[in-house]
Amino acid sequence: MASTEEVAAFIAAEFPQTKCTVLEVGNGGATVSHQIGHGELRPGGTVSGPVLMSIADVALYVAILGEIGLVPMAVTTSLTINFLRKPAADRSIVGVCKLIKVGKSLAVGEVYLYSQGSNDAVAHVVGTYSIPPRRQ
Amino acid sequence: MASTEEVAAFIAAEFPQTKCTVLEVGNGGATVSHQIGHGELRPGGTVSGPVLMSIADVALYVAILGEIGLVPMAVTTSLTINFLRKPAADRSIVGVCKLIKVGKSLAVGEVYLYSQGSNDAVAHVVGTYSIPPRRQ
Amino acid sequence: MASTEEVAAFIAAEFPQTKCTVLEVGNGGATVSHQIGHGELRPGGTVSGPVLMSIADVALYVAILGEIGLVPMAVTTSLTINFLRKPAADRSIVGVCKLIKVGKSLAVGEVYLYSQGSNDAVAHVVGTYSIPPRRQ
Amino acid sequence: MASTEEVAAFIAAEFPQTKCTVLEVGNGGATVSHQIGHGELRPGGTVSGPVLMSIADVALYVAILGEIGLVPMAVTTSLTINFLRKPAADRSIVGVCKLIKVGKSLAVGEVYLYSQGSNDAVAHVVGTYSIPPRRQ
Repeated sequence: MASTEEVAAFIAAEFPQTKCTVLEVGNGGATVSHQIGHGELRPGGTVSGPVLMSIADVALYVAILGEIGLVPMAVTTSLTINFLRKPAADRSIVGVCKLIKVGKSLAVGEVYLYSQGSNDAVAHVVGTYSIPPRRQ
Repeated sequence: MASTEEVAAFIAAEFPQTKCTVLEVGNGGATVSHQIGHGELRPGGTVSGPVLMSIADVALYVAILGEIGLVPMAVTTSLTINFLRKPAADRSIVGVCKLIKVGKSLAVGEVYLYSQGSNDAVAHVVGTYSIPPRRQ
Repeated sequence: MASTEEVAAFIAAEFPQTKCTVLEVGNGGATVSHQIGHGELRPGGTVSGPVLMSIADVALYVAILGEIGLVPMAVTTSLTINFLRKPAADRSIVGVCKLIKVGKSLAVGEVYLYSQGSNDAVAHVVGTYSIPPRRQ
Repeated sequence: MASTEEVAAFIAAEFPQTKCTVLEVGNGGATVSHQIGHGELRPGGTVSGPVLMSIADVALYVAILGEIGLVPMAVTTSLTINFLRKPAADRSIVGVCKLIKVGKSLAVGEVYLYSQGSNDAVAHVVGTYSIPPRRQ
């Protein structure tokens, strides 16, 4: 297992291009946040779907790292997203991940995505990760 | 909105072939139970995937009825299931649904399925329902 | 690899409860058929969703067996179904599977389901199977 | 219905930020291409998942526009992606969409994503779009 600080440092070093901030990791879940700027918006002032997916993907990855340790080779194998409401254009997106299963070779989790300050999810994601055979 | 008793009576009348028992409806969710007999098992003593899917489908439907009233024409439009663990062969399956969104034309919910008495989900489902234009 | 006849005999022996008929296996795919009787119908004369899912699941399994040989331990890990049109109540359902990937540990395929004689799919399924480590 | 040229011009005007090129629209499908640069890569030299999803999303949208005309308000409601193989770091990604259903209020399609020049898909996507009530 890895702490919030360890996971945040790992993400910053290995994925310098991500704009996600790791807020919390542990207890079979994780919370991340992502600032929304002009580049993430689509016409109509909505956050683009791929940006939402990327935040969910990071939330899942971070939650898994919290459980299995800092394994760089875990890869997403599938992801299902349901878009629920139009996100606010001027709020960060917060992703709250809860792991459903962490098995030997496969991890499954779900992520609720919110516009910061709202309790109504803008999207819901279920994703699966393949875990490499030898864990560190 | 409809109460647990109203939904249970509606299901018994409209879907007499279902083996699901409606345990609770309300607060944006529902709980159903389904006895497992020989006919629901696959080789190896596991509950068949389609049986799990059908329980999740009923849990979702029942939860939606609880929110929008007794609308017989709501239909499933999509369903994603992740199989997580082998269910017990001799326990009922319990489906716990939480609605994620109930919109004008589409409802989305998730269902955790458990072997009765266990806290480890055997499967997780996300499903969407199309709601007919005129609600009762 | 296994032939249509070998796969059909295997399914008949290992899954005697299935009502699916294996029509063809090979070339990275499979076609199965399933007669529809009163027990498979829902109110309104439509084929129930779980029956459609079970046919897709068999089509996928059969296609995978055709590729990797008669491995009884392959299990479905996830399945996403989109319901497209109301199936005919008095026609068999035909499932046409095309494998998308057959890897060492995971196979992915899609299935189109039709009412026999129609070219408009009633449902579309994407499913993943976990393949046991040692293939026969 | 709209031609390849009309759809390409519409996308260029309404979504100037997309890097996708519309190659072909029609016959219930579409093909798009997306150049891969340093910004789309993840550690290990692989194309990031969200980039793949965004290409599939555009392919679906473009195919739907080809069928229903230039409707700016169609929105993605769900998307399921299976990641199959590591994409080449130095090839464009080509997305080939085939529509499965175009109904009054919902369209469903699938997209195979390839590294240019390869016949082995790197990812497979099924997506649904909500179509606004009044079509142009």
